[in-house]
Amino acid sequence: MSTLELGLPMPVPAPGLPARVRIHEVGARDGLQNEKATVPTEVKAEFIRRLADAGLTTVEATSFVHPKWVPQLADAEQLFPLVADLPVALPVLVPNERGLDRALALGATRVAVFASATESFAKANLNRTVDEALAMFEPVVARAKAEGAEQVRGYLSMCFGDPWEGPVPASQVVHVCRALLDMGCDELSLGDTIGVATPGQVSALLTALGAAGVPTEALAVHFHDTYGQALANTLAALQYGVTTVDASAGGLGGCPYAKSATGNLATEDLVWMLHGLGIETGVDLGRLVATSEWMAGRLGRPSPSRTVRALSHKE
Amino acid sequence: MSTLELGLPMPVPAPGLPARVRIHEVGARDGLQNEKATVPTEVKAEFIRRLADAGLTTVEATSFVHPKWVPQLADAEQLFPLVADLPVALPVLVPNERGLDRALALGATRVAVFASATESFAKANLNRTVDEALAMFEPVVARAKAEGAEQVRGYLSMCFGDPWEGPVPASQVVHVCRALLDMGCDELSLGDTIGVATPGQVSALLTALGAAGVPTEALAVHFHDTYGQALANTLAALQYGVTTVDASAGGLGGCPYAKSATGNLATEDLVWMLHGLGIETGVDLGRLVATSEWMAGRLGRPSPSRTVRALSHKE
Repeated sequence: MSTLELGLPMPVPAPGLPARVRIHEVGARDGLQNEKATVPTEVKAEFIRRLADAGLTTVEATSFVHPKWVPQLADAEQLFPLVADLPVALPVLVPNERGLDRALALGATRVAVFASATESFAKANLNRTVDEALAMFEPVVARAKAEGAEQVRGYLSMCFGDPWEGPVPASQVVHVCRALLDMGCDELSLGDTIGVATPGQVSALLTALGAAGVPTEALAVHFHDTYGQALANTLAALQYGVTTVDASAGGLGGCPYAKSATGNLATEDLVWMLHGLGIETGVDLGRLVATSEWMAGRLGRPSPSRTVRALSHKE
Repeated sequence: MSTLELGLPMPVPAPGLPARVRIHEVGARDGLQNEKATVPTEVKAEFIRRLADAGLTTVEATSFVHPKWVPQLADAEQLFPLVADLPVALPVLVPNERGLDRALALGATRVAVFASATESFAKANLNRTVDEALAMFEPVVARAKAEGAEQVRGYLSMCFGDPWEGPVPASQVVHVCRALLDMGCDELSLGDTIGVATPGQVSALLTALGAAGVPTEALAVHFHDTYGQALANTLAALQYGVTTVDASAGGLGGCPYAKSATGNLATEDLVWMLHGLGIETGVDLGRLVATSEWMAGRLGRPSPSRTVRALSHKE
C-alpha cells in the first residue's frame, strides 16, 4: 500500500532544511482561550493527553492569567494536575508574578510570558508600554529561573504587522527579543498575530535578528493562517534554520483582533509539509487528525485544517 | 494610511525570486466545471469580465469538451463570443479535434489540451493509455499551431501523486512533458491534482525537468490546497525560477477525485503572497476579492479563500 493510501505525504527532502523540527503545540491554550462556551476541564485534559499520545513532545497546557481576562482558562489549577504525569513538556503561560506563583505551586517547570513588539498591542493587551511590560516580566523570568524552571519562553506578538500601526520595523522586534533574552528567556516565539506576513518579511526579520546576535536556536515561529500564508512563511523560516514551530491541533483558535474564522496554523497541515520534506517530528499524523476530529465534535464545528478535512473525509 | 489598513500586504522582496509572475486564472473553467447547479451564461461572462477588470491578463474561459462529460460548460459556444472582445488572453480547453474545430470557429487563439502523467488517471479521465492520449493530442496541437494559435498549453495532471498509484516518479512527468513540447506545446502546466505534494517534491520535479532539457520558461505550476500545501509549493517553484502560476479566484473548484471541499489554490491567497514578496502581478487585490465575493453570492456559499474571508469580513 502506498503512503498516499495510508494518508501520509511522500517524503522528498529538500536541501538545507533541518532534519528534525520540534512542534510547540498550542491548541489547548492558545487554541481554546477564545472559545466562548466553557470546555469542561476533563475534555481539556483528554485533549492534552491525546496530543501527547499522538507524539507531540511540547504541549502548552493552560494559562495562569486572571480568570477575569480569560474565563475559558479559569480552571488552570484543576486542569494542570490532571495532565502533570504526562511524559511531555507542559509549558504554561504566566502573565505576572501572581500567575507564576500559581504555576510553580502546581509543579510547572516550563513557563512563558507574553510580550508585544508594538506599543499599540502592548497597550491593548496589557495596558502598558512595551518597556513597562518587559519590566513587569523581568522578576517573573528571574524567579522562574531561580526556582529551577527548565525553560522560560517569551512570546512576542505583532512581529510583522499590527492592525493599528501597520508594518512593524524589525528593529522593534530586535529590541524586545534582546530584552527577553537578557532577562533570561531561553526561547522566543515570533508571532504573526494578524497573519499578514509573507516569506520575504520572515527571512528579513530572521536575518535582522541574526545580525543583532539573537541565536537562531533560541527562536520559534508562530504563524497565523488569516491570509493563508502560514505554511509558506514556515518554509522560509525552516530555510533560515529555525527548528521550533508553533502550531495548533486542528487549527483551533485565532486572534480576536483579526475578524476572520481562521487563525493558528493547523498542526496537521504543518506535519504534512514537514513529513513531506522528510523532516522528523515524532508525530503520528493519523492519531493527531483523530484527536482534532474528536475535539471538533466537542466544540460542535468542523476543523478549519485542510489536512484534517481531507483525511477525515476518507473515513 | 498603512498598506494593512488598505487590506494589502507589506512588500518585502526575497532574494532570487522573479520580479513578475503571470497568473493563469482558471476559475471560470476549472473552478466552475464541477459545479452541479448550472451557472447562467451571463453570470460566467460577467465573472470573466470582472476578472479581467481586476487585472488578470490570462483568464481561461471555458472548455470545448463534449457537453455529456462537462454539462456545466455546455454553453461554450454561447459564452465565448460574450467575452471575446476583452483585452486579455482567453485560453480554452480543447479535448480533441472536434473541440478544436469548435474553438477555432469562434476565433479562439489560445487552446489547451489535458494530458495525464499517470496511466490510472489517463484511463479514468480519457479512457486511454498515457501514450494513446498523447497520440490523440498530436493532431490537435499541430492543427492549432498551423491555424496560427498564439499559444498551446499542455496540462499534465497527477504530476506528484495519484490516488491509485501513489507517488508519481519524475521520469513519467518528464516523458509526458517532452512529448507535449515535441508536438508543439508552448506551455506546460504541472498539476498536483490531489494536492499531496510538498516543497521538496516540487523542487525535485523541477530539477528533473531541467536536467531533461525542459525550459523553465515553458513551465507553469498548478497546485491544489487539499492539504494546505499550495502556497508553500508555489514558493518552492518561484525559488526555482517558475514565473507562471495557475490559480482560481476565490479558490473555486477542486478535483472530483479528492473528497475534500478544498481544491484549487485561491488567486487571492497567491496574490497576497506575491505582492508581499514585491512580485508584480498587475492584479488589484481589492477588485479581485470583490469579484470572488460576488461569485460566492451567485453560487450560494462562502469562498474557501483565507484572504477573501479575511478581507470581506472587514466590510
